[in-house]
Amino acid sequence: MPRDPALPLLLTPGPVSVSRSTKEVMLLDRPSGDVEFSADLRFAREYLVSIVNGGGRYTAVPVPGSATYANEAVIATLVPEGGKLLLHSNGVYGDRLIEICEALGTPYAVLRTEPFTPPTAAQFEAMLRADPVITHIMVVHCETSTGVLNPLEEVAALCQRYAKRLLIDAVASFGAIDLDARSLRFDAAVLSSNKCMQGVPGVGWAVVARDALEGAKGHCRSLTLDLWDQEQHMQRTGGFRFTPPTHVVSAFAQACREHADEGGAPARLARYRRNWRRLVDGMRQMGFATVVPDAHASPIVATFRAPEHPGFSFEALFAGMKRRGFVIFPGRLALANTFRIGCMGAVEEADIAEAMEALAEVMTEMGIRDLGRVEAAGA
Amino acid sequence: MPRDPALPLLLTPGPVSVSRSTKEVMLLDRPSGDVEFSADLRFAREYLVSIVNGGGRYTAVPVPGSATYANEAVIATLVPEGGKLLLHSNGVYGDRLIEICEALGTPYAVLRTEPFTPPTAAQFEAMLRADPVITHIMVVHCETSTGVLNPLEEVAALCQRYAKRLLIDAVASFGAIDLDARSLRFDAAVLSSNKCMQGVPGVGWAVVARDALEGAKGHCRSLTLDLWDQEQHMQRTGGFRFTPPTHVVSAFAQACREHADEGGAPARLARYRRNWRRLVDGMRQMGFATVVPDAHASPIVATFRAPEHPGFSFEALFAGMKRRGFVIFPGRLALANTFRIGCMGAVEEADIAEAMEALAEVMTEMGIRDLGRVEAAGA
Ligand SMILES: Cc1ncc(COP(=O)(O)O)c(C=O)c1O
Ligand SMILES: Cc1ncc(COP(=O)(O)O)c(C=O)c1O
Repeated sequence: MPRDPALPLLLTPGPVSVSRSTKEVMLLDRPSGDVEFSADLRFAREYLVSIVNGGGRYTAVPVPGSATYANEAVIATLVPEGGKLLLHSNGVYGDRLIEICEALGTPYAVLRTEPFTPPTAAQFEAMLRADPVITHIMVVHCETSTGVLNPLEEVAALCQRYAKRLLIDAVASFGAIDLDARSLRFDAAVLSSNKCMQGVPGVGWAVVARDALEGAKGHCRSLTLDLWDQEQHMQRTGGFRFTPPTHVVSAFAQACREHADEGGAPARLARYRRNWRRLVDGMRQMGFATVVPDAHASPIVATFRAPEHPGFSFEALFAGMKRRGFVIFPGRLALANTFRIGCMGAVEEADIAEAMEALAEVMTEMGIRDLGRVEAAGA
Repeated sequence: MPRDPALPLLLTPGPVSVSRSTKEVMLLDRPSGDVEFSADLRFAREYLVSIVNGGGRYTAVPVPGSATYANEAVIATLVPEGGKLLLHSNGVYGDRLIEICEALGTPYAVLRTEPFTPPTAAQFEAMLRADPVITHIMVVHCETSTGVLNPLEEVAALCQRYAKRLLIDAVASFGAIDLDARSLRFDAAVLSSNKCMQGVPGVGWAVVARDALEGAKGHCRSLTLDLWDQEQHMQRTGGFRFTPPTHVVSAFAQACREHADEGGAPARLARYRRNWRRLVDGMRQMGFATVVPDAHASPIVATFRAPEHPGFSFEALFAGMKRRGFVIFPGRLALANTFRIGCMGAVEEADIAEAMEALAEVMTEMGIRDLGRVEAAGA
């Protein structure tokens, strides 16, 4: 049965598709000071902490807006005056952290590495040795602009060795790719309500070590982004300081329930892996090549080179897929001529199979029958 | 027909109830980079500018989060280094502006006036004379914590006379109470997606004078709250810099369409006035007294004194109303023993009439039959 193009499935790295039952929660207007809403918030917070096995030691602080707000809130609240942040970047979201520090005026150093492979521990270590003033390291766990998975465990081990504090942009990994506070010490991990948690976008979250947050009073030069202030307000009142996006937050609580029902992060990762496998196999069969070596790729999103076939156009591919009810995504790399197809969200392997059929049709429409051979010749 | 308590009507000063058709928009997942979503954003922006008759001279910049974020963004983006802000406060939201300046480190002076009446122009003028360093004035148009309507026109006239820039927290008034950029010069007016615009909460907006924004590059010490940066990004791409709350934004576009269909701000104000009249008359009939003199009250919300009758308890009133499908709001004033009932949102006069019947029932349940006489005796 063909999909309804008016109800497209998002195969993008974000926003991602969300279950109907999660969205239906938004048909109700909830008062923000009420027991029901407070229960939704409390449940979501506890669930997020439980995902990293952080019970007792961590707290989850919501930051209405988006994950970038939460990244900014983490830096502004947790890096004190006199602190210095080592940022790593091998893509758009690493660069975004640099922009945040520029705006905040937070002192930082940058380790910039090659986009399609992860950095090595030795590269981080060299930076730490060269600049002992560094107090914190912030890394993007999964760099969504390529799909590269960065070596969190190794950076965490270095942080232990050199007594640095670790901050994690876990926006594209949280809720699917393993992050365990019992084995990996971090001060904060940032996530989005959307992405692997499969809520609707509109709230970023910071899962923060209580001991790190306790010392952070007065650091943040913003009222709205002050995690310390929001945390103490929640402890006093159980609620938000400002009118929360009530519909988004209650939908997020529902998304957490569905995350648990599915079997938590391991089950979600397994499903994304099936999606990713089907996607990459299907695309390769049609002659497309991935940009990131499989060994470093995360099953969140896959980046493909636009083929050099004269009949190919990404615009036509996008439009043809959209007519068939699938939304894909242009590359956001400095590297032109790539595009991305996401595997996150309320998407099953069967959906990817359908998308591959649709994509084959669109290729035929573009008059491309032998991409494989052209690609092979062009490679 | 009794209301379904599982689908309560919010009679609070925020979040306010929203039409079913506005919420239904959120049943669709929209890609953020798509033509449809960009059209929603463009329409909403143009519509907000049209409400103040600001075509050409003003732009509407969304700030995902809430209205407090937008207030902070306006101060952080528009008050330059070397600037000084005169804040007025006669309630919770005036105080909130002080908290923002404290966090940002923005120099400010405060004119603090009595909570249940508006300030006079002379009070502002005395501040301006005493402190010529002041460059900007920020006032809360309708102070939601009491319902007092502050004298915007008079402050704007002073701004003209003393060559100061005017910033307006129009969160509780925008879309209902008149604000016309042709007759009243302001640099920014802040609103919420919720409140009188009747969208779901999750986005604040700043309607900003283009000439004020153009000079504001680099002022803001935050990436996420930088209005200049968001504006130039929209001009280049038509979209948001970070993942937007897509459901909330598209619902807001629908709320704008419904605002227009109703007849714009004048029609909305007229409806809220009917609601307010019915509410205040009904409550007075039962013996309740309002806190703010009618001449200064805005038809957004009404604040009532909790009666001194020994049988009365706000908790019981709240619970009894909730069981009947109505949510009311405790007072947020320093002044204890008040409560508020809102008139904003997808609420008709008939709903208020029903709420008054419910309230009469709850009073009877509390064993109170003669509040009027007790009040009169106590007054
Ligand atoms: C006048 C006024 N200003 C500011 C705010 C803060 O808005 P938000 O709660 O959306 O941050 C409110 C909210 O009720 C308000 O009424
Ligand atoms: C790894 C990563 N970090 C940060 C962000 C920014 O999140 P948002 O767009 O919600 O602000 C994203 C969004 O795609 C992301 O993938």
